[in-house]
Amino acid sequence: MYSEGLINKGGCMKKLINNPDNVVKEAMEGMEKAHGDILKINYDPAFIARKDSPKKGKVAVISGGGSGHEPMHGGLVGFGMLDAACPGAVFTSPTPDQMEAATKAVNGGAGVLHLVKNYTGDVMNFQMAADICASEGIKVESIIIDDDVAVKDSLYTAGRRGVGSTVLTEKIIGSSAERGDNLETVVKFAKYCKDNGRSMGMALTSCALPSVGKPIFEIGDEDIEMGVGIHGEPGRERMKIKPANELVDMMIEPVLSDISLKNGDEIIMMLNGMGGTPLIELYLLFNRAVEVASKKGIKTVRCLVGNYITSLEMQGFSITVMKANADILKLWDAPVHTAAIRWGI
Amino acid sequence: MYSEGLINKGGCMKKLINNPDNVVKEAMEGMEKAHGDILKINYDPAFIARKDSPKKGKVAVISGGGSGHEPMHGGLVGFGMLDAACPGAVFTSPTPDQMEAATKAVNGGAGVLHLVKNYTGDVMNFQMAADICASEGIKVESIIIDDDVAVKDSLYTAGRRGVGSTVLTEKIIGSSAERGDNLETVVKFAKYCKDNGRSMGMALTSCALPSVGKPIFEIGDEDIEMGVGIHGEPGRERMKIKPANELVDMMIEPVLSDISLKNGDEIIMMLNGMGGTPLIELYLLFNRAVEVASKKGIKTVRCLVGNYITSLEMQGFSITVMKANADILKLWDAPVHTAAIRWGI
Repeated sequence: MYSEGLINKGGCMKKLINNPDNVVKEAMEGMEKAHGDILKINYDPAFIARKDSPKKGKVAVISGGGSGHEPMHGGLVGFGMLDAACPGAVFTSPTPDQMEAATKAVNGGAGVLHLVKNYTGDVMNFQMAADICASEGIKVESIIIDDDVAVKDSLYTAGRRGVGSTVLTEKIIGSSAERGDNLETVVKFAKYCKDNGRSMGMALTSCALPSVGKPIFEIGDEDIEMGVGIHGEPGRERMKIKPANELVDMMIEPVLSDISLKNGDEIIMMLNGMGGTPLIELYLLFNRAVEVASKKGIKTVRCLVGNYITSLEMQGFSITVMKANADILKLWDAPVHTAAIRWGI
Repeated sequence: MYSEGLINKGGCMKKLINNPDNVVKEAMEGMEKAHGDILKINYDPAFIARKDSPKKGKVAVISGGGSGHEPMHGGLVGFGMLDAACPGAVFTSPTPDQMEAATKAVNGGAGVLHLVKNYTGDVMNFQMAADICASEGIKVESIIIDDDVAVKDSLYTAGRRGVGSTVLTEKIIGSSAERGDNLETVVKFAKYCKDNGRSMGMALTSCALPSVGKPIFEIGDEDIEMGVGIHGEPGRERMKIKPANELVDMMIEPVLSDISLKNGDEIIMMLNGMGGTPLIELYLLFNRAVEVASKKGIKTVRCLVGNYITSLEMQGFSITVMKANADILKLWDAPVHTAAIRWGI
């Protein structure tokens, strides 16, 4: 009657699904019902677009990637953020036809920016879509986010992985596009975000793909994975669990030092849950992260605390820091209306 | 070096904490750092208040309860919602001195409404605080939310438990107080919400108290608890896991029928995660819940989908439905600015 994917006999990985093959489609239907005022959904090929797209004369910003990281990216589509998001199967890159169709659907004639997280499949498939669209006369630029300082290369990545900075970048360049900046300017801000945002994550537990139902990696009852990727990729070290403050210290130091932050600098910080971590713990972790930055004279002037780029039900967290300045904060503070991030509207 | 509470040797219940005794305080410090623009925190006795409180001439709305259900209630303090929230220890009622201090701190002279979830300790302690404040000349009214249709009496409750309707009620009466309604009117809307909101929840997994580190109840790898309480209290039935649609059907039917909803009625629906459930699953569940209501001619005109009243890292979900009308929707749509719910501002 029901799929094996509902139950993992080897752990606590039960799933609230009907059929592993339909999870993404049924979730998109739910998003359409919940957010039909701001979103329209295309099911084949799959993409989530702003209801008011295409906006003539506005630069369009598109992102996408495997599902399972919600609310990113579908929950970040709307006024002041993304024009469209392309969801792949869970932890699987979307296919080029999705990005091609989304690009054509939201192109308002002022150019389209593809914001891509650095995973081999995502990069390749976005590039194929960009090439097709460019050959048909659409101006397409691509920026690849590779902000994860944990490891140099990884399971699905040449170079650093793209993680939490993507969320902050989508807000900043989304507001740039929204106020009417041209493609060159939006790309300039995207490059700023790429160069000035860094992240690192850790996991207490694994998660399970709906199609498999078993943990994607094994981890001991007292162990954590320091530097984990958002698909459970190995990080820097498997170690015994430590008090929260020690974990934060181990993560914030490499993040801050990698962008050479110094006394007097201002930052936007995201303390992100991996999906299964209680909010009370995220605030406790955020408290320490801000303190550590503050002791170095680095001031946290804006923040997000919550689940923004997740790994299904994984327990763990990541810290993302982006260096701020007056231009960036003006874009950050501008009105935004998406399913997951909303203010000023 | 670190507490036993960080690790549960019998399961997957590792914690991102420093010391079980300091979890609530450190999380409050994190909230102060993240939301200092809208909140001010009193640490002893512990309560979270609107930064601009007390507001002279405005009815003040206060809620509270055990911690571990975040963002409720501290994340729901702000413009258009609560004036103050009193967090107890994890899964433990706040003490009367907290509600007394909060009541006195946010009282603007137009009366104070205590919104209480129906748990024996909460009800008793809020009542003691109300009595003390009343004896000192503050006009205090209390409304007890008891919306959980799963069971008649429960582990910590005489009568039905108070759960998800509390979140919707806080939004509606918060907006009523914000626009300047008098205490009598705010109480009238609170009674409407009490009478017209119903909920039911289920759990796939348990959660663990920071002070204990072990699951608060045992549950098999293929089992679920249907009708679970937000402290892991037993519900209607321990059963084998079923496909998501069947679970939704088992929960939405008793919720809808308990408030005699009929063809043509409009509702606000909250599809709430218990803390450890991926958002992709919540949207999938919401999709079914709206469909079932729709087939009965009941229209879901507003919604919340996400983690609003949680049980630490528990996996599971709850459905809350509140019958709407033009007055209620006007209050729902009014601007709100809290850590967890924000629009129009």
